[in-house]
Amino acid sequence: MRFDGVIPPVVAPLTADGELDIASYERHINRMVDAGVDGLFILGSSGEVVFSTDERRKQIITETMRIVEGRVPVLVGVIDTTTPRVIEQAKVARDLGADAIVATAPFYAIVGPKEIERHFRLIKQAVDLPLFAYDIPVCVHVKLSPAMILDLARDGVLQGVKDSSGDDVSFRNLALLRTEQGLDLSLLTGHEVVVDGAYMSGADGCVPGLGNVDPKVYVEQWQARKAGDWERVRELQDYAARLMRITSVPVGEVGFGAGVGAFKTALMLLGVFETNTMPEPVVALEGSNVEAVAGVLRQTGLLD
Amino acid sequence: MRFDGVIPPVVAPLTADGELDIASYERHINRMVDAGVDGLFILGSSGEVVFSTDERRKQIITETMRIVEGRVPVLVGVIDTTTPRVIEQAKVARDLGADAIVATAPFYAIVGPKEIERHFRLIKQAVDLPLFAYDIPVCVHVKLSPAMILDLARDGVLQGVKDSSGDDVSFRNLALLRTEQGLDLSLLTGHEVVVDGAYMSGADGCVPGLGNVDPKVYVEQWQARKAGDWERVRELQDYAARLMRITSVPVGEVGFGAGVGAFKTALMLLGVFETNTMPEPVVALEGSNVEAVAGVLRQTGLLD
Amino acid sequence: MRFDGVIPPVVAPLTADGELDIASYERHINRMVDAGVDGLFILGSSGEVVFSTDERRKQIITETMRIVEGRVPVLVGVIDTTTPRVIEQAKVARDLGADAIVATAPFYAIVGPKEIERHFRLIKQAVDLPLFAYDIPVCVHVKLSPAMILDLARDGVLQGVKDSSGDDVSFRNLALLRTEQGLDLSLLTGHEVVVDGAYMSGADGCVPGLGNVDPKVYVEQWQARKAGDWERVRELQDYAARLMRITSVPVGEVGFGAGVGAFKTALMLLGVFETNTMPEPVVALEGSNVEAVAGVLRQTGLLD
Amino acid sequence: MRFDGVIPPVVAPLTADGELDIASYERHINRMVDAGVDGLFILGSSGEVVFSTDERRKQIITETMRIVEGRVPVLVGVIDTTTPRVIEQAKVARDLGADAIVATAPFYAIVGPKEIERHFRLIKQAVDLPLFAYDIPVCVHVKLSPAMILDLARDGVLQGVKDSSGDDVSFRNLALLRTEQGLDLSLLTGHEVVVDGAYMSGADGCVPGLGNVDPKVYVEQWQARKAGDWERVRELQDYAARLMRITSVPVGEVGFGAGVGAFKTALMLLGVFETNTMPEPVVALEGSNVEAVAGVLRQTGLLD
Repeated sequence: MRFDGVIPPVVAPLTADGELDIASYERHINRMVDAGVDGLFILGSSGEVVFSTDERRKQIITETMRIVEGRVPVLVGVIDTTTPRVIEQAKVARDLGADAIVATAPFYAIVGPKEIERHFRLIKQAVDLPLFAYDIPVCVHVKLSPAMILDLARDGVLQGVKDSSGDDVSFRNLALLRTEQGLDLSLLTGHEVVVDGAYMSGADGCVPGLGNVDPKVYVEQWQARKAGDWERVRELQDYAARLMRITSVPVGEVGFGAGVGAFKTALMLLGVFETNTMPEPVVALEGSNVEAVAGVLRQTGLLD
Repeated sequence: MRFDGVIPPVVAPLTADGELDIASYERHINRMVDAGVDGLFILGSSGEVVFSTDERRKQIITETMRIVEGRVPVLVGVIDTTTPRVIEQAKVARDLGADAIVATAPFYAIVGPKEIERHFRLIKQAVDLPLFAYDIPVCVHVKLSPAMILDLARDGVLQGVKDSSGDDVSFRNLALLRTEQGLDLSLLTGHEVVVDGAYMSGADGCVPGLGNVDPKVYVEQWQARKAGDWERVRELQDYAARLMRITSVPVGEVGFGAGVGAFKTALMLLGVFETNTMPEPVVALEGSNVEAVAGVLRQTGLLD
Repeated sequence: MRFDGVIPPVVAPLTADGELDIASYERHINRMVDAGVDGLFILGSSGEVVFSTDERRKQIITETMRIVEGRVPVLVGVIDTTTPRVIEQAKVARDLGADAIVATAPFYAIVGPKEIERHFRLIKQAVDLPLFAYDIPVCVHVKLSPAMILDLARDGVLQGVKDSSGDDVSFRNLALLRTEQGLDLSLLTGHEVVVDGAYMSGADGCVPGLGNVDPKVYVEQWQARKAGDWERVRELQDYAARLMRITSVPVGEVGFGAGVGAFKTALMLLGVFETNTMPEPVVALEGSNVEAVAGVLRQTGLLD
Repeated sequence: MRFDGVIPPVVAPLTADGELDIASYERHINRMVDAGVDGLFILGSSGEVVFSTDERRKQIITETMRIVEGRVPVLVGVIDTTTPRVIEQAKVARDLGADAIVATAPFYAIVGPKEIERHFRLIKQAVDLPLFAYDIPVCVHVKLSPAMILDLARDGVLQGVKDSSGDDVSFRNLALLRTEQGLDLSLLTGHEVVVDGAYMSGADGCVPGLGNVDPKVYVEQWQARKAGDWERVRELQDYAARLMRITSVPVGEVGFGAGVGAFKTALMLLGVFETNTMPEPVVALEGSNVEAVAGVLRQTGLLD
């Protein structure tokens, strides 16, 4: 099983009272699969994993597997603070049919490099699914070292990396060493605004949050990249960067509330989601902020 | 019910194969209660909350309540990433008999000040127990603002603060404003090496990790503080600062592995714990590091 | 020559067109010396060293030495990016009569611990005056390690430390080790809001920016500390903490503009400074911000 | 005058006793100009500006202008803590013939956004040369906001940006807005390992430290970029990324000591520099570290 190409981190629609909105979710997943995405990553940071109870997490996995029906591989985030808790999540994901799991370094806990490495080894030992390391220092406050990643790839622990580190220099070095050492390690970038640069660096695909809103642009970009049409790769990236402004126009919002808040609002405006409800303690975009998102959608031609 | 004085964050003993060691735990809790502590804080950062599965968390609460038998109040850490998950933990703690709960700001999730404030309000709404805010930027990577804390105290949301912020200037300002505004807000410091300074600033007590190893020194210091004997407060603090070196002598260890690793090792050397086993992915101190901890215990007279 | 007690970091008055205001400066220095301060620290962070050209720095040293006339020792900040530039500043300070010099770790430059240690050794080699290490991570973005400080004290390189690190735990450990090792190292705290805690930890004095506004309170506090009257030490600290609010009431200002801006404004309101002019690119407090500072001065009784 | 293409930040050769090595400097500059670079940036971070006294800075400018003789434009770093000091440096640069000047945000000083903007405006007012903003948070600990940069470009204050921010997402957004708004703002990337990605984002050129060692590769890459030959751009980048390993092979060195230390060592091994002497307090690479640099040069074919 390959894990490359476009693998959006799936955003979860909620009903007005905070339940998972199944009808919207079906529309949303089918829209992305129909657009030609190569996989789906659920329960990632924008998939509100840390805002979801264990029950909700199970529901999201179960519904996703049911809707996807094997059309594309499903990667499941098993995001929790430390090894014992992550392994519990990983077993649930495995039992519900995940094709691969995605884990971060330990967080909240203050540990060092040797504990981080041991963490990934123990997860793989406990649950023998393809394992992706999720490098996201903005959430876990530590950067995974390329040297450790390469060691873990060589030992068969890691299948790939989902890179949201914001460190393009480190990513280039990792990609180059991976190739030189002949390692089978799938490198996916999470930075939807500079996927073209990541492709130049050797990325095998992307995990674009913005792909929830416009999956086609990333699919077409990936095809252009495979065809070696770099000018097209670049043009599509400029378009996506303009569309990404839906996340910077909301006033008075930051982080998850601005980013996922804008994705949900755009999907509501596009008729995919019923509401733009956010999980507590985040409040949905309202009024002029919704209007601002609509304005960007109009400028980029997604909305009339 | 008062929450002041010495309230150690209880370290959990494990058997060699990683189970909760009940016999050691009984010895440990009784030793602290007998020393005269004013409360116990379980499932805090050093109480390995983020290393414990939900099952283990329940076991720790249940066993603690059974052993303590109401002799002192028990504060329970309900540490999880965001509001829905924290509320779940809070309900469990309440149902198992917690006297108070302790929650941090959201972590991993990237949110702003308004979400942090809403987070505490929603927790209090869901579970009407005395609620402490746990200010620990080294783990959650955000500092709670004194202005927000005072607002929440005024509205009856917060009962107190467990301050592990490392920001003594902010703590002084908070304590002064709390007093000027006549608010009933219990301020406890988590910095066991400078409790004397915190008492000068107006702290109502302390939550010293080192109090696991030597509860008596903090109890005596609190009595000296109440008696206004500041020279004694200071002398005892200097002694405690020397004892705290058990956490800096281990070589090649950082964070939780060095700190809690040293506490567990000291308790093993003192005959309170059976082992110094650590939760995964952390490995227990060994060999010369154990010897180094023993050396400090001998220098401070705790070990012959 | 002793360097202990109260050593304010002298704020420099400017005329409306940005020149050093000599008449105000004489009033200011004489007011502090008359209040009984034990020394003066010029060209520190609040002494606008990094806002002053070399010419201005020389003028400040020259005028200070002339006004002080040996009544108290004068410590001179030799704050610049790296060793060659600091040594130049140190030679100027020596030639103009400095009693001691104060240097930070290198900044802007990205160096490691061994370069920091070599930096201090080379400064001392070049200019054989009493040398203080200025530990101010908020400006130079590195914390000096207690182990390095102790080594440098043992080798006669450092005479003392001006601690503005905000790390009270580290300060306690440094003070304790210094005493245990019998080193002659003067430890001065720069945190004017928690001097009482620093005295508990073993500080030999303070370098309070707020001492520009009210030098008497720190002088009286130091006397109380020497007399062992800790309750008085604490009361005076609470008073000073309330007065320090002049720096938090200005709206729309941060850092140097808020802090030194408020000190200058208070000194203007107290009739010591002619203006509250700030060095470029900072703009002086105006309108309601001046009024807010005046309000705090009235509340604390400094202004009618 | 255009400022685009390849503009290496010139590394300064020193004699064994720390003087500027004029003969080596001539060889070095001529080698880069002969290779076809489009400009030279002197007294940047790797040009040891913060390690140089004012006298040395003047000498470097003077010698550079003499050697270059107008063959390419010379940009001069006027790097100092705040406005008054930067303006002094800027006047010197202007008087010695600089074609453009490059300034960072204030550093050491704690200021906010409005002071940063005023800083650039005042510099431009004082010295009417083309002004580049040097965005280098790793040294000055603040990131320049794209919105401010665009405002300053619109008002004719900024001619360009030298981006060493490590934030490729922000760079993409800046480049896109600059183009959409029709601003004449030259965007140069300082990240020599991912210049291809920066070109995809719209960069007008690069300021590659590694261009000191191998200027030809960056010149050829820039030509390929202008020709739209993206595959070639990428191949050359991979080669440069491998060569950049000279900076990661030294053991026990960090930051400037590792980076510029490796550049100087490579230039010594290539016969361009006489020595690899570093400015105090940094020590030159020695022994096995020199050998490691030589190893990388051999692997990449620069050394036999």
